[in-house]
Amino acid sequence: MTVKNAFYAQSGGVTAVINASAAGVIETARQHPDQIGTVYAGRNGIIGALTEELIDTSLESVDDIAALRHTPSGAFGSCRYKLKSLEANRAEYERLIEVFKAHNIGYFFYNGGGDSADTCLKVSQLAETLGYPIQAIHVPKTVDNDLPITDCCPGFGSVAKYVATSIREAGFDVASMAATSTKVFILEVMGRHAGWITAACGLANEGEGQPPHILLFPEIEFDQAAFLARVDECVKNHGYCVIGVSEGIKNSAGKFLSESGLTDAFGHAQLGGVAPTIAKLVQEELGYKYHWAVADYLQRSARHIASKVDVDQAYALGQAAVKIALEGKNSIMPAIRRLQDAPYEWDIIEAPLKDVANVEKFMPRDFITEDGFHITQACRDYLSPLIQGEDFPPFKNGMPHYVTLKRQTVAKKLPPFTV
Amino acid sequence: MTVKNAFYAQSGGVTAVINASAAGVIETARQHPDQIGTVYAGRNGIIGALTEELIDTSLESVDDIAALRHTPSGAFGSCRYKLKSLEANRAEYERLIEVFKAHNIGYFFYNGGGDSADTCLKVSQLAETLGYPIQAIHVPKTVDNDLPITDCCPGFGSVAKYVATSIREAGFDVASMAATSTKVFILEVMGRHAGWITAACGLANEGEGQPPHILLFPEIEFDQAAFLARVDECVKNHGYCVIGVSEGIKNSAGKFLSESGLTDAFGHAQLGGVAPTIAKLVQEELGYKYHWAVADYLQRSARHIASKVDVDQAYALGQAAVKIALEGKNSIMPAIRRLQDAPYEWDIIEAPLKDVANVEKFMPRDFITEDGFHITQACRDYLSPLIQGEDFPPFKNGMPHYVTLKRQTVAKKLPPFTV
Repeated sequence: MTVKNAFYAQSGGVTAVINASAAGVIETARQHPDQIGTVYAGRNGIIGALTEELIDTSLESVDDIAALRHTPSGAFGSCRYKLKSLEANRAEYERLIEVFKAHNIGYFFYNGGGDSADTCLKVSQLAETLGYPIQAIHVPKTVDNDLPITDCCPGFGSVAKYVATSIREAGFDVASMAATSTKVFILEVMGRHAGWITAACGLANEGEGQPPHILLFPEIEFDQAAFLARVDECVKNHGYCVIGVSEGIKNSAGKFLSESGLTDAFGHAQLGGVAPTIAKLVQEELGYKYHWAVADYLQRSARHIASKVDVDQAYALGQAAVKIALEGKNSIMPAIRRLQDAPYEWDIIEAPLKDVANVEKFMPRDFITEDGFHITQACRDYLSPLIQGEDFPPFKNGMPHYVTLKRQTVAKKLPPFTV
Repeated sequence: MTVKNAFYAQSGGVTAVINASAAGVIETARQHPDQIGTVYAGRNGIIGALTEELIDTSLESVDDIAALRHTPSGAFGSCRYKLKSLEANRAEYERLIEVFKAHNIGYFFYNGGGDSADTCLKVSQLAETLGYPIQAIHVPKTVDNDLPITDCCPGFGSVAKYVATSIREAGFDVASMAATSTKVFILEVMGRHAGWITAACGLANEGEGQPPHILLFPEIEFDQAAFLARVDECVKNHGYCVIGVSEGIKNSAGKFLSESGLTDAFGHAQLGGVAPTIAKLVQEELGYKYHWAVADYLQRSARHIASKVDVDQAYALGQAAVKIALEGKNSIMPAIRRLQDAPYEWDIIEAPLKDVANVEKFMPRDFITEDGFHITQACRDYLSPLIQGEDFPPFKNGMPHYVTLKRQTVAKKLPPFTV
């Protein structure tokens, strides 16, 4: 069998465990020198392929590649860049082929979410569209947990563990301050369209009256009157109210709250900050003292509180991607299949890329309580396994010790190309 | 020796380790039944003493009291309530004495910051002012780290470890996104007057070019032009810029930035949010894509990433408070004395309460670089020991498992009293 080199790239918003997938890909490829030569990583995702900026991962030590398993974010650089259709930008595809040819690349591993799956799908079709033989395998990744077919998406479990832990801790704080100070606390989490991360906040509540008391999902139209009534009832019954809100909640007009008239009174939409919007509303309508937090990047980079299940799945999917490629397959995304809830058992299946690309998986309605303000038992049964287990990184000088790779690129063989 | 009961209360903003001090007080008191009877904890701080809501800690199990060591926030409830002067509100002091008499209380342990030290000082003077014999000992606590005499304040080390870890993790995230997306990230941390928490963000930077690149301290007047120039230079040199900012930074007019004209354009001051203020400024003046986070309560309640040194000191100070009381002393605050930086060695000394009350300790100017945008080696030598060691709480169902006490109050013996 002829030896071909491999291209690996990270795409879209990064996560606490995408580098664990990278470790899975690189370590597994290194075990098959008879089939895979060098794994080149694209500097800043697919852009690195277009600009011929190929990081030679063979120059990275065994220890450093292993350390990727506990290092958050994209070690090779990620990008927000979606290939246009072949018709719209044929030059880009021809350039990709030039670069692949110049560096003898026969394997393409793309680590990303829905948009990236679409890019990977287009690359997987290069054989038929432009006659260049390549095997493109997509490695799933997204904190939004919105990819179809797979039971969950690597990156989500760790964000879920982070937000559940954080809102529980903040809840204890507010409970002790409520008598004379803060009565309402709002935590804004990610999830522009799908409420999976907001739902994960709900895991912190394990009994009547425990925080969070209210969750606001992007799938549920924001009902101001019902919300305020619930907050008031909660403060009167429990002395305080802790709220988890998705950055993407919309009002009855279908507008993002962070872009609604409400916001204009004290915050431009581009600032994000639906939490302060909600906080202001609570203060103006109910007069309760509030505090709010916006986790933003902290939630998706919090490798220090990563879910062990998430780390294991991220690594296993990178590993599986290489095995699938070595079996001669193309246009596939390895996916997690749930075998049972408790104890959680899972294995990996092969999903056709065409069924994954550009499909968004939202929260099923029966995962949200009828009143729209919390999660159901069915949702807990789904979410709980994904945050199980701790996988603390090594600490040095009192802080997590993460690796920074050499990221040395190979000599370019082609003329420059501007993206 | 006659047996007297003890009163313990938590005051002001809570921390990740104030309950460790409570455990130190209660467990140590339980070892001296010949001198200390029951430890009554005030429900919601000093207010519990005034309203005669006394939690009987003898009804809490040995395991639950031990679990306080790894449980964040104030298990008995805290309060923001400062006793007025004897002249201004004699009735409150007379009420305290009635309650203390009714429940045979001879020891007063108050766990709080500067304002609380003042309350504790006033209580310690009840013998001379109103002829009631009591020993009042103050147990230091504040994430602001602004108490005098003591090397540091319990609660601060854990916030320091949290913000250093979080800004490091977010820094890795931004570094991987910067090529095509976010170039500037801003983390807002607590510290209205003192920049200790902002300084702790600086520990994440262990080499040239590492994040955070810029720190904005409340002790340094915000110079918009110099700041923007530094941000621009940083993005041009490193590709991105990570900023740690104190909620309390002020402009040249001495106004909080979150209350300045800047803010009005897109955010009322009461929303807090100096991070979005800075973010907007960066976007308008430099045009860089940004993200921002506001940690708020998450930072001071993050027991999951607490500093072991901080937990140990919090417990030891609670323990010391009881020992000092048993030696017949009054009007004292046990304080941490640093014996050496590396390896960090410390012991506990006795600080006269009159030297502690209402004194704020700010960052020494030589802890901040000349340009005002980062910390010096002297500051690192001071801060680094305080975040050493991990003390992870037990996990259950994938989340930290914290204790909630019974909090059963004893029967009231006196007529109601309204605060």
